Amino acid sequence: MFPWPEPGQNLSDVPTPMAVIDEDRLAANIARAQAYMNAHGKAFRPHIKTHKIPAVARAQMAAGACGLNCQKLTEAEVFAAAGFQDILITYNILGPARLARLRALNDAVPRLVVCADSETTVEGYARTFASAKPLHVLVECDTGAGRVGVQSPAAAAALAGQIAAAPGLVFDGLLTYPPVGGAERVEAFLSETMALLAAQGIDCPVRSNSGSPDLWKAHLVPSATEHRAGTYVYNDRSMVRAGECSRDDLAMHVLATVVSRPTPTRAVLDAGSKALTSDLLGFTDHGEIEELPGARILSLSEEHAVVDLSACTAALPAVGDVVRVIPNHTCVVSNLFDRMVFHRDGVVTRVEDVAARGTVW
Amino acid sequence: MFPWPEPGQNLSDVPTPMAVIDEDRLAANIARAQAYMNAHGKAFRPHIKTHKIPAVARAQMAAGACGLNCQKLTEAEVFAAAGFQDILITYNILGPARLARLRALNDAVPRLVVCADSETTVEGYARTFASAKPLHVLVECDTGAGRVGVQSPAAAAALAGQIAAAPGLVFDGLLTYPPVGGAERVEAFLSETMALLAAQGIDCPVRSNSGSPDLWKAHLVPSATEHRAGTYVYNDRSMVRAGECSRDDLAMHVLATVVSRPTPTRAVLDAGSKALTSDLLGFTDHGEIEELPGARILSLSEEHAVVDLSACTAALPAVGDVVRVIPNHTCVVSNLFDRMVFHRDGVVTRVEDVAARGTVW
Repeated sequence: MFPWPEPGQNLSDVPTPMAVIDEDRLAANIARAQAYMNAHGKAFRPHIKTHKIPAVARAQMAAGACGLNCQKLTEAEVFAAAGFQDILITYNILGPARLARLRALNDAVPRLVVCADSETTVEGYARTFASAKPLHVLVECDTGAGRVGVQSPAAAAALAGQIAAAPGLVFDGLLTYPPVGGAERVEAFLSETMALLAAQGIDCPVRSNSGSPDLWKAHLVPSATEHRAGTYVYNDRSMVRAGECSRDDLAMHVLATVVSRPTPTRAVLDAGSKALTSDLLGFTDHGEIEELPGARILSLSEEHAVVDLSACTAALPAVGDVVRVIPNHTCVVSNLFDRMVFHRDGVVTRVEDVAARGTVW
Repeated sequence: MFPWPEPGQNLSDVPTPMAVIDEDRLAANIARAQAYMNAHGKAFRPHIKTHKIPAVARAQMAAGACGLNCQKLTEAEVFAAAGFQDILITYNILGPARLARLRALNDAVPRLVVCADSETTVEGYARTFASAKPLHVLVECDTGAGRVGVQSPAAAAALAGQIAAAPGLVFDGLLTYPPVGGAERVEAFLSETMALLAAQGIDCPVRSNSGSPDLWKAHLVPSATEHRAGTYVYNDRSMVRAGECSRDDLAMHVLATVVSRPTPTRAVLDAGSKALTSDLLGFTDHGEIEELPGARILSLSEEHAVVDLSACTAALPAVGDVVRVIPNHTCVVSNLFDRMVFHRDGVVTRVEDVAARGTVW
């Protein structure tokens, strides 16, 4: 029923609002990050939450990624069903229903790894898994982001000991999701914990660091064996602000139609929070518009974007014009659309199912 | 593949995060609003964007609604396919592809009405429709919300004249989406425009006002013939703040599991922006937690909610506990889930497809 575009169609004819991906920029983002990781001896594990599309993950693997990072159990199930064989779920997985599904997933995936930051989580894993096909577990460490994670190297080492002692579990190492600019603190936490583990006679083969904003600083954490990043694959306004990419590396735009010009300095687009989300990520407006430099998306309703044109330095738009919005945050846009449109040279190349859209459990 | 609940299942066993609807509160919200509208002689036209579920719209119609309000063309197509016969699309519909679909929709739906706020929009409608099955059009008026809409009664009357003059169109009247507390300005705009139209010999049968926050003030706009509202059906934290409802009228909760207790004053839930959205709606935090009064959801990642427990006045939660989050904004939560779980007395009663999820075109 929905008027999804077809390959070969002009991008200018695509219904709006529509999230669209530039094939060449996507390929360049994938290659650039992998080349950097190769040059610095880090394994690269892309976080697929940004696209949720098996074909894009295949491209990341083909470029040299060591495996995938998923955030939730059901997101991992989608990618396992699509054939991926090395999946890390960076989450505490809790409760009998989820643990039962995790056990089935572990039987199906050659290399599955999960995270834990508490004894409760580890006890759940230990009760559920047996040594025949043990569950691999990383201890998640809070290195300043203030989200999940054990709070100290000593706590990390203690939890690692609990994992290592469980017959059905394998302690694989350490993981963190640091704040921007946190390399020094990550290195300190990891190396202190590794020293404690060595003293306990516990191997720590994996030390997994992450983040797109500091992608090109991954080498500042020498103890990290791998780096995880999601946003880099499409990029967004926050990545340009972070200096992680240039505007030429923005692979995702949200195409929108100008549906109203109520006043000389106001335009309204058909891309509201249900196409862009209202994620500000520290910005005071909701995106940029390529064709309208200086214009500001001051507010979003669910299906409208109200644009202030008063500082726009280009020709003002007319009702019916289609513009390209650079979203503040790309990962959450992907999760709004059932399918994603890819294009090259103004022509639709393919339309992929966002296979893991909505996989929040 | 997804572990959707089944009728008869305990609500406490539902996978999280999950948006769930209390049947009795839902029914009461529907009945209460309709009774008020009946008492004040207003036709009531619910905005289905809040639920996007045909079965809920049927309940609203059964209670006495005059028809449905949809926001986008493809949202209306879903409800037309589900059998609804009186649909208002409160949007400027532009471009040949959408106009062609609108024509097909107009042929299929006994009573379809759209909006316009510019000559460009009306010209598109006029080119597309013929007198055999004309398109009914309301002029959308900006009564202070600063979004779309003509800017003055004179402009409204002029656009009405353009519509009335087109052989394939019928001018049905006026419509607005006012700011909260805007009743006086709405009444002034409508009555002034009606006077101008009367002087032009143009009938103005429909005057459509809207808003959930001012639902119980709809009678303060005597010139309005109908009222449109969406959020009232489920309610949310913003509606409690607006005084539109009490906490006992909150039909939607988002169930979430405590996945981590990293510090004595911090908890992390598995409901992030991909379950709640990051819509603040003027709040400084991202929702309330029924079981944890005083706790504050200070930040959301895509799949985590970081909760500050320092001011919590109840017993603190443990890893694995399930809590009920009151979202800041219910309408956008519905658009994140493919299906919606309904419950009564702690038991799942039904699971409905969110049939119009993602219909942004």
